[in-house]
Amino acid sequence: MGDGRWHGEVSPRWSIGQYPNGGYILAIGLAAVRATLPHPDPVAVSAHFLSPTEHGLVDVEVEPVRAGRAHSTAAARLLQGGTERARLLATYGDLAAARGPTVVIASPPLLPPPEECTGQEATGPLPSGLDPAIRRRFDLRLDPATSGWFAGAPSGRGELRGWLRFADGREPDTAALPLLVDALPPAVFDLATGGWVPTIEISVYVRGRPAPGWLACRTATRFLMDGYLEEDAELWDSRGRMVAQSRQLARLNRGP
Amino acid sequence: MGDGRWHGEVSPRWSIGQYPNGGYILAIGLAAVRATLPHPDPVAVSAHFLSPTEHGLVDVEVEPVRAGRAHSTAAARLLQGGTERARLLATYGDLAAARGPTVVIASPPLLPPPEECTGQEATGPLPSGLDPAIRRRFDLRLDPATSGWFAGAPSGRGELRGWLRFADGREPDTAALPLLVDALPPAVFDLATGGWVPTIEISVYVRGRPAPGWLACRTATRFLMDGYLEEDAELWDSRGRMVAQSRQLARLNRGP
Repeated sequence: MGDGRWHGEVSPRWSIGQYPNGGYILAIGLAAVRATLPHPDPVAVSAHFLSPTEHGLVDVEVEPVRAGRAHSTAAARLLQGGTERARLLATYGDLAAARGPTVVIASPPLLPPPEECTGQEATGPLPSGLDPAIRRRFDLRLDPATSGWFAGAPSGRGELRGWLRFADGREPDTAALPLLVDALPPAVFDLATGGWVPTIEISVYVRGRPAPGWLACRTATRFLMDGYLEEDAELWDSRGRMVAQSRQLARLNRGP
Repeated sequence: MGDGRWHGEVSPRWSIGQYPNGGYILAIGLAAVRATLPHPDPVAVSAHFLSPTEHGLVDVEVEPVRAGRAHSTAAARLLQGGTERARLLATYGDLAAARGPTVVIASPPLLPPPEECTGQEATGPLPSGLDPAIRRRFDLRLDPATSGWFAGAPSGRGELRGWLRFADGREPDTAALPLLVDALPPAVFDLATGGWVPTIEISVYVRGRPAPGWLACRTATRFLMDGYLEEDAELWDSRGRMVAQSRQLARLNRGP
């Protein structure tokens, strides 16, 4: 729009009950940032969530901060009715142009094939009774070794693993990865019971352009302390390449 | 100062050669943020580095974004001669007032006692020939199992572990943790040779108020891809409590 102001809508299709998914809110802001910056890939984005986003209209104000040769950065504010919901910082680059050494010392999660994993249709209603509309946007298959918490039997390891793709057949790209990397249920549900897990801050690094097909995911929470928790997530593409990682700080709230 | 503008100085005492440490730049910005917000502890801070900071005067412009009951958030810009060096988002809280469940499934790093570790005085000059002035600000003792890269023998595991405290006897507090969590050498040096590792983005979560004494540290890089790398760090206090964690995205540059 030229003046850095964008208008969008927060759809209930990406929510749990009345709570929009944090990755979805991030994706709304990044769509406006992406249209402003010269580089294609969100190599490092950070978001601080300020107040609960509601369904309906949202304004996004984008401030270009710097445009360099390799990277460009913008800040963005998401507002509803003049109240700021989230503040973003996003640094974009061109992963196809990146040159430098590669040493990877981690492996993709070991998963049973998707047809032997636990689909979301098998997991039943949420304990909170909220409508998990966002579940219908993704085809998520959790490794049965990490889905016991659905049936009230958390493993205590604080880790979820599974396969992920869009339910409508859309293939992943670097613009979708910040949404996809926050698509799994909270790993803290494998440690402790809770209802709502609002994100305080999330940082996403997009590390590669994903190949078509399933993404293999791993999310983990190791430190739940006085109700604060971190969650680390990674997504690996169908060629076995890690393409996105995220870390977030959140609160475990008892009620929905 | 009331108008959200602060003035400071980037000292060469916290640099490697002409390159100020990223955690030090972050700490300069957070000192101004802390003076602006009502909550005491930096529970989640994010910084995007835009252009190389130089020694000398720095202006910090703080914008209060939101003040809520449990958390308050500000944005900050660091400028030198009108050029923006870094943009910060910081959410503060009160860790002493936090209430909620605690489940920790990680352990502090297993370390030999400090007197059996590798002090910085033993590590000799940097391969790049730069003056590592910042080393004299910290008393850092690396586990010998993770300090082989100093002598040209990296382990290939991409992990550094050690003991850390301020060299002048100052005890750690939550304001110092964002600086301390970035005080170790880059873990990527245990994977690949390089000179300068500029940070693109760093997020720090302060999780507890540290007890006096040594901090036990662990930093790790698992994915060096086309010159981009992430580094995760944790600090544990002398009571065995994890008090800060960070993740950063950086580039491995060959030259100094």
